[in-house]
Amino acid sequence: MNSFGTIFKVQIFGESHGEGVGVVIDSCPAGIELTQDMFIADLQRRKSGAKGTTPRTEQDTPKILSGVFNNKTTGAPITLFFENKNTKSSDYNELQAIFRPGHADFTAHKKYNGFNDYRGGGHFSGRLTVGIVAAGVVAKQIIKNVRINAKLTEVGGEKDIDEAINKAIKNKTSVGGIIECTATNIPIGLGEPFWNSVESVISHGIFAIPGIKGIEFGNGFMATKTYGHVNNDCFINENGETKTNNSGGINGGITNGNNLIFRVGVKPTSSISYNQETFNFNTKKMDNLQIQGRHDVCFALRVPPVIEAITAICLADLWLCNNC
Amino acid sequence: MNSFGTIFKVQIFGESHGEGVGVVIDSCPAGIELTQDMFIADLQRRKSGAKGTTPRTEQDTPKILSGVFNNKTTGAPITLFFENKNTKSSDYNELQAIFRPGHADFTAHKKYNGFNDYRGGGHFSGRLTVGIVAAGVVAKQIIKNVRINAKLTEVGGEKDIDEAINKAIKNKTSVGGIIECTATNIPIGLGEPFWNSVESVISHGIFAIPGIKGIEFGNGFMATKTYGHVNNDCFINENGETKTNNSGGINGGITNGNNLIFRVGVKPTSSISYNQETFNFNTKKMDNLQIQGRHDVCFALRVPPVIEAITAICLADLWLCNNC
Amino acid sequence: MNSFGTIFKVQIFGESHGEGVGVVIDSCPAGIELTQDMFIADLQRRKSGAKGTTPRTEQDTPKILSGVFNNKTTGAPITLFFENKNTKSSDYNELQAIFRPGHADFTAHKKYNGFNDYRGGGHFSGRLTVGIVAAGVVAKQIIKNVRINAKLTEVGGEKDIDEAINKAIKNKTSVGGIIECTATNIPIGLGEPFWNSVESVISHGIFAIPGIKGIEFGNGFMATKTYGHVNNDCFINENGETKTNNSGGINGGITNGNNLIFRVGVKPTSSISYNQETFNFNTKKMDNLQIQGRHDVCFALRVPPVIEAITAICLADLWLCNNC
Amino acid sequence: MNSFGTIFKVQIFGESHGEGVGVVIDSCPAGIELTQDMFIADLQRRKSGAKGTTPRTEQDTPKILSGVFNNKTTGAPITLFFENKNTKSSDYNELQAIFRPGHADFTAHKKYNGFNDYRGGGHFSGRLTVGIVAAGVVAKQIIKNVRINAKLTEVGGEKDIDEAINKAIKNKTSVGGIIECTATNIPIGLGEPFWNSVESVISHGIFAIPGIKGIEFGNGFMATKTYGHVNNDCFINENGETKTNNSGGINGGITNGNNLIFRVGVKPTSSISYNQETFNFNTKKMDNLQIQGRHDVCFALRVPPVIEAITAICLADLWLCNNC
Repeated sequence: MNSFGTIFKVQIFGESHGEGVGVVIDSCPAGIELTQDMFIADLQRRKSGAKGTTPRTEQDTPKILSGVFNNKTTGAPITLFFENKNTKSSDYNELQAIFRPGHADFTAHKKYNGFNDYRGGGHFSGRLTVGIVAAGVVAKQIIKNVRINAKLTEVGGEKDIDEAINKAIKNKTSVGGIIECTATNIPIGLGEPFWNSVESVISHGIFAIPGIKGIEFGNGFMATKTYGHVNNDCFINENGETKTNNSGGINGGITNGNNLIFRVGVKPTSSISYNQETFNFNTKKMDNLQIQGRHDVCFALRVPPVIEAITAICLADLWLCNNC
Repeated sequence: MNSFGTIFKVQIFGESHGEGVGVVIDSCPAGIELTQDMFIADLQRRKSGAKGTTPRTEQDTPKILSGVFNNKTTGAPITLFFENKNTKSSDYNELQAIFRPGHADFTAHKKYNGFNDYRGGGHFSGRLTVGIVAAGVVAKQIIKNVRINAKLTEVGGEKDIDEAINKAIKNKTSVGGIIECTATNIPIGLGEPFWNSVESVISHGIFAIPGIKGIEFGNGFMATKTYGHVNNDCFINENGETKTNNSGGINGGITNGNNLIFRVGVKPTSSISYNQETFNFNTKKMDNLQIQGRHDVCFALRVPPVIEAITAICLADLWLCNNC
Repeated sequence: MNSFGTIFKVQIFGESHGEGVGVVIDSCPAGIELTQDMFIADLQRRKSGAKGTTPRTEQDTPKILSGVFNNKTTGAPITLFFENKNTKSSDYNELQAIFRPGHADFTAHKKYNGFNDYRGGGHFSGRLTVGIVAAGVVAKQIIKNVRINAKLTEVGGEKDIDEAINKAIKNKTSVGGIIECTATNIPIGLGEPFWNSVESVISHGIFAIPGIKGIEFGNGFMATKTYGHVNNDCFINENGETKTNNSGGINGGITNGNNLIFRVGVKPTSSISYNQETFNFNTKKMDNLQIQGRHDVCFALRVPPVIEAITAICLADLWLCNNC
Repeated sequence: MNSFGTIFKVQIFGESHGEGVGVVIDSCPAGIELTQDMFIADLQRRKSGAKGTTPRTEQDTPKILSGVFNNKTTGAPITLFFENKNTKSSDYNELQAIFRPGHADFTAHKKYNGFNDYRGGGHFSGRLTVGIVAAGVVAKQIIKNVRINAKLTEVGGEKDIDEAINKAIKNKTSVGGIIECTATNIPIGLGEPFWNSVESVISHGIFAIPGIKGIEFGNGFMATKTYGHVNNDCFINENGETKTNNSGGINGGITNGNNLIFRVGVKPTSSISYNQETFNFNTKKMDNLQIQGRHDVCFALRVPPVIEAITAICLADLWLCNNC
């Protein structure tokens, strides 16, 4: 159940501390230019190393295992693989007794009867998003005219992002943030009524990112606090341009040609060195946990390229479906 | 592209002013009791007629066309059909020149090259949700122990819902609102990592409802304004119960056994009798529009049973998939 | 699990002795002409009444419940419904103790724990193919230039079909036959390598027809008895035309522009008035069964339009996928 | 479009002369033992080297890239990769002008606008079946009690298989054959009516194998030459055992607990050194082609383990779906 898309299908695989992580992209049209270099920019933006992010850094250059010939897609499934090199599994040994609060340790343990690879979150690790970003690079080639831009607009409830991160570091805790994504130059008519509305498809994709807890399109929750005559976007010309864009570029689940806009709420990183009192499943008593290991103080910093990638994946798939 | 679900598949069909609307439910287990009576309660809650809702009322009793024998599901596809009787199509004739702001008139016209049934929004009408509510009644029989409750907590930004609706009526405009949904007695382990996280699946379903513009799980966007040590839900016993439930019952995309909680933002009704200045696609000039016809001042009032239904549909499907 | 297709999705429903049978066709392009009249010709060919077919005749005119407006498809799901009128359920009462050999009575009873509608085979009845034929009528409008023709070439191993049927009638038994289907004017490039080869997709669809036990493409099983240099189809011009067409118009799972040819083996009708000695699940002893009721001596006579319909459905879906 | 399965999903990828070939298996249950050793037996049987098979031999030991931890499946996607080592691409340079008769060269070239990897058939190569065989090894662990056995029963129309191959070698040509597959100890109730009948699902999978041109279940095409009272399988006890098994263990698309039996027709290898007169797309004239390179005289010899694997994959998926 770990693939996404109707025509342009994205299957991710891998574990945080296993051989590596990767992605198979099925049904990508043939003839699209694709070289290793093209992945660098987006993967670099996702990478850690800056303040507020984990000191674990991986090379993050994909090995192209299939689907590309003479630097062009062939129409066959594209497989991209990222080897894990910089792993320190010993950090995680004690975490089988004390499931980390906020993480998938407990639910994965239960769902898979204890057979899950628990090292670094295993398959649930944010590291898997490296494959998503790579698939997004391919998707962007399909919807070439569309420009997608996601940026962190708020951290810990503050606009001064640096300040908020410093505070969290000082307190050995973590913070989340809000990311706004805008896609421009969108064709009219993408999306389907009801079950495959643009909002349905994009939210489905976006909530694949670990730690996302909310999404809103256009003016979103603010729309609930205003009136219909204020919220409606009146048309101003025959191209479908509207005076306002409260709907975020979507009517009836279908793109109307105006900018696609949505905002995403990212929770604070669950791994914190702050002392947490939580249940020890071995001793059957409450216990204290200070998570060592390497982790982001604010992983929201690394999420914008993932959001852009998923937006591209969704739009590419809707585009391919729409032109059927 | 108008079906939803992996095992428990829900295909809706119909138009606001056509023969009727309906739903086919595929792969429902055999032996579940199902009678016409069982649909009444939920459909009644969705129905119009109260203050703030349209005076158009439909009988809303489903005809069971297939899949049920001796009042039990047979394992074959279940088809439920609701005839349209109370339609007044003449209201909509002028709307082909002036696409209603906030509606799918423009996008549907473009997407389907003018062949869409525009009467009352056609296939895009909220009337289609009657089939969704009916499918939810079936889904609830599959996840019998789970209790789902959605309620409108706020209208037009106010807790006094009556007051907010009166204001909107007086101003010939409309209002939206916020609905909170809670599901209790959820088994641990529903949902899949990444692409089929519980949040992915539920948000996908919820955004099928016309007019939904935002969704958040647990403390949602509020999580972005707090710290990791506050936001993390620490375990308190070996059942996985947590001290707080900021995650809304989901970790790593998988249910943890705590209550599933999410909130949904519903925009103000797009159809308003308030005068709107918008483009006339015939005269190619700006024009004035006061929408007559019958419509809800606050359709959010009718959405809670739809949200419950979709939640039940999602959980039933995840349940069936999980027990594979 | 009763739908078929990736883009052009066909969901059938209904029972032999219930309210009726029908089909929902999802993602049909908008703007295709569709009137009740257009279904008559194909449905008439499927109908019973001729020698060798059951005396049960149904009106078989579809009620168009959704998806069509002003005689054109709208892009929304198309629902076609055929009411059952000419049912005689009393015929089937004794069949719960003695499962009819060759039928789905036993397997359906087991699979659905006895909740299946057993009257006339319920959902397993050949009557369900009326919805498939109707969906084929729609599919043919999508692949307008393609001509599909299926004909019965052999009954009971004989070319003189009338003679073979007479023999079966005289002996109170039944016969099957071989149907050859040819589709001409096929575009090059339909189908996908491996899992969605044209052979995969068409055979998947064809084996949905009750009573089909074999399929072969091109020279099929005969190819196993010859040599590579005889069997290979050499190209004779740049359009891809080949000297021979042993491959049946498919190379590597993909249409090559030559005629698509396949043959289908239809078993003898399972319902026979001939005395059969079979187990009685009530008395737990062997028993005698002479099936009364109405049934075809050679239902293969009625299968050609169903095969054409499925071929059209498959090609329409591959066509829509291919143009993504 | 290159994945297969509803719950147990198999995605293959790779090219004959690229980095390698592989498979991602999604939604395999957790806790199944899986080691590299377990792949050896089946992969060995598929391997070349014997008389009648290509001298190209590959190591064919899968690298397990994901989804396995401590020699057990984790519930996360399983990725198996086979590096290509023994490739000789120079053999294929001239084949862009003269598309090999019987191969996918022409159709792939057209479908992918010339961007396909043509070396050794690229993604269309039979080498891709190594991933299928590997997925079958996993599937067999899910349906542990079922025994599947496929064997070549006939080559070039003869029962003396050695003799037939010798003749083909002598004549610089190739031969095909018939493979019979039997699965025993099958649970009752697998498969769905109509679109997902056991025949539909298995034939869909089997026709993914390059060079398969026919399939028949039970007595298959022979059923068309007999009578209903002969062909019907009468029940002899309450377990559903039948006196005969002409239906091949399937009634109404659903397994009845008797042995599942089907036969598959494999065409002669298309690559032959025999001189073929075929069109040269460069010179636009007819030309002579003697294919050099390495190829099987009778690749049907290597197909039985692939057929077993696909049968296991299909049954595992139906099993998982059935237990929803």
